[in-house]
Amino acid sequence: MTDRSQSLFLRALRREPAERTPIWMMRQAGRYLPEYRATRAKAGSFLKLAGNPELACEVTLQPIERYGFDAAILFSDILILPHAMGLGLGFATGEGPYFERPVQSPAAIDALPMPDPESDTGYVMDAVRLIRTNLPEMTPLIGFAGSPWTVATYMIEGGSSKDFATAKKLMLAEPEAAHRLMNHLADATAAYLTAQVRAGADALMIFDSWGGALSPRLYREFSLASQQRIVDQLNQTCPDTPLILFGKGCGQHLELLADTGCAGLGVDWTMDMGEARRRVGDRVALQGNLDPAVMLTTPEVIAREARRVLESFGEGPGHIFNLGHGITPGVDPEHVQVLVETVRGHGETGDGRRET
Amino acid sequence: MTDRSQSLFLRALRREPAERTPIWMMRQAGRYLPEYRATRAKAGSFLKLAGNPELACEVTLQPIERYGFDAAILFSDILILPHAMGLGLGFATGEGPYFERPVQSPAAIDALPMPDPESDTGYVMDAVRLIRTNLPEMTPLIGFAGSPWTVATYMIEGGSSKDFATAKKLMLAEPEAAHRLMNHLADATAAYLTAQVRAGADALMIFDSWGGALSPRLYREFSLASQQRIVDQLNQTCPDTPLILFGKGCGQHLELLADTGCAGLGVDWTMDMGEARRRVGDRVALQGNLDPAVMLTTPEVIAREARRVLESFGEGPGHIFNLGHGITPGVDPEHVQVLVETVRGHGETGDGRRET
Repeated sequence: MTDRSQSLFLRALRREPAERTPIWMMRQAGRYLPEYRATRAKAGSFLKLAGNPELACEVTLQPIERYGFDAAILFSDILILPHAMGLGLGFATGEGPYFERPVQSPAAIDALPMPDPESDTGYVMDAVRLIRTNLPEMTPLIGFAGSPWTVATYMIEGGSSKDFATAKKLMLAEPEAAHRLMNHLADATAAYLTAQVRAGADALMIFDSWGGALSPRLYREFSLASQQRIVDQLNQTCPDTPLILFGKGCGQHLELLADTGCAGLGVDWTMDMGEARRRVGDRVALQGNLDPAVMLTTPEVIAREARRVLESFGEGPGHIFNLGHGITPGVDPEHVQVLVETVRGHGETGDGRRET
Repeated sequence: MTDRSQSLFLRALRREPAERTPIWMMRQAGRYLPEYRATRAKAGSFLKLAGNPELACEVTLQPIERYGFDAAILFSDILILPHAMGLGLGFATGEGPYFERPVQSPAAIDALPMPDPESDTGYVMDAVRLIRTNLPEMTPLIGFAGSPWTVATYMIEGGSSKDFATAKKLMLAEPEAAHRLMNHLADATAAYLTAQVRAGADALMIFDSWGGALSPRLYREFSLASQQRIVDQLNQTCPDTPLILFGKGCGQHLELLADTGCAGLGVDWTMDMGEARRRVGDRVALQGNLDPAVMLTTPEVIAREARRVLESFGEGPGHIFNLGHGITPGVDPEHVQVLVETVRGHGETGDGRRET
């Protein structure tokens, strides 16, 4: 019987020594893979793919089968949760997500239902159960959700936004209503993530894609505080499940994020890993941070830049290799193989132990 | 006879005491103003507006006449310089700028001509001369250009980009050619800015809109180094003209930017002014940094948030109030009046002296 808690990924998240740096990639189940595109075509739409546990399981496993990544991540979307609140999620071709019924008034905020994870997002929990059953025993499964601020931007703007003007206006001009929205989303997100753990997720991740668009005051008051609320609830409901917080463009807030009590932080590519490590000390593990654009260059450049990331973090435990953001659709799958082999081969001696 | 060097803006840039904080706004001559939209309609296109000295002068003066801003900024575009290198600049409706002949090979880089500022961009220098003649004597005029890295992204990608994949690939896979491009752009930019000073500009600004998209190593090697090359050349050609460097999303590099020898740094809204000031000390003046999204809220919120920026910088010299990025088209002109009055009225006693 295997003990998944001893997997490279979960050991690194606990900052325990490991024989090599584990690797997975954000958006690893994605359009750069021909087998993903085939399943996606079979499903008919992104929402049908994410909404079908068998197909979601299929694409989640594809990059594990092809590359043997050290962790799998549930195939889903950060907008599934507000979709379950009745906002009517859709995807316009080439235009990104939209909501049919955006939330733009205090009354609309107060009318938002609290989804029940099993009855309202049962297909997500079914997917987690199915993936866990079909994954290699020693491969951990990461569940995830969006941060309240990031999810709220889509709910308020009705879709993607360049400047988040309507969402920021709510925070600035109607802070009480904005806080109610953040708290509602934080509570719903904690319940949603807890249910993912009960269904079989071994670790959790929160994506704060747009935290970097906020002034420091609004960041602390809305994005950080609502993530803190989730961390506190998860520490009650599933204290043994490590949580990774990833804030794109949030490098300046790294210390504050490390202080939340999470297990690890995702680092985007705009900060050196060594600098990130100096700043958070031994409080958290760090995950990252190759610029996804590197994956579009050449095998030589990919190997060189991956080694730079490994060397920037340096020796010692607590590093999970990843890109600094999701892999882009145009990447050659062979390039991912180069990346995986580079990270696997780094610092290993012939007997499988790290060089010192 | 007036002495413009004693204007609030130029005193603040030298970090000399002033009776109040000067204010101007990035993109202050812009679409939020009905008089700008009228002139723009008369011109027929953005390029015809920027290419006509009389009309460029007209829109440059409009916000000065309406609000009495403490500095004017030349109405032009950061892509005028590569346009003068023969790339064929165009603007697709609602799509942003594009180049008909992007630069995507070492051969194309080496074939780039070095524009002569007066013969190849004479309409810009004519606009500077005309604006200087028509501006109030005590209102300084800011000339500007894009940073080599930022301008290069458009030259290489052929227009706007989400991930700068082609530009980054050049830096990563063909660094020698990329350095030649950066040096060529830096030399052309220094000559272009020097000519603006000879035509009448009282201060200069370099916009590095996309420096924040680079990893720290690429930032230092390409964006920062090429800006340093410009600073060094300007310190030879026009040592008495203060230069402001503005890097969007470059907060983590603030100390490096302060060390270039520039007079001031623009700060975007994602960093507290007080924090920026602590980090750069007394090396440079600081300009910024209200989130442009605040301008879309209400008069009360605008006044409150503007005071927060002023209070975050605190007492003492060296602050130029500005937005943290360009003003957005949808802003009510009355809201700008509220901002100007708030900044003008801040910390003033009845006798026009600052409270201590």
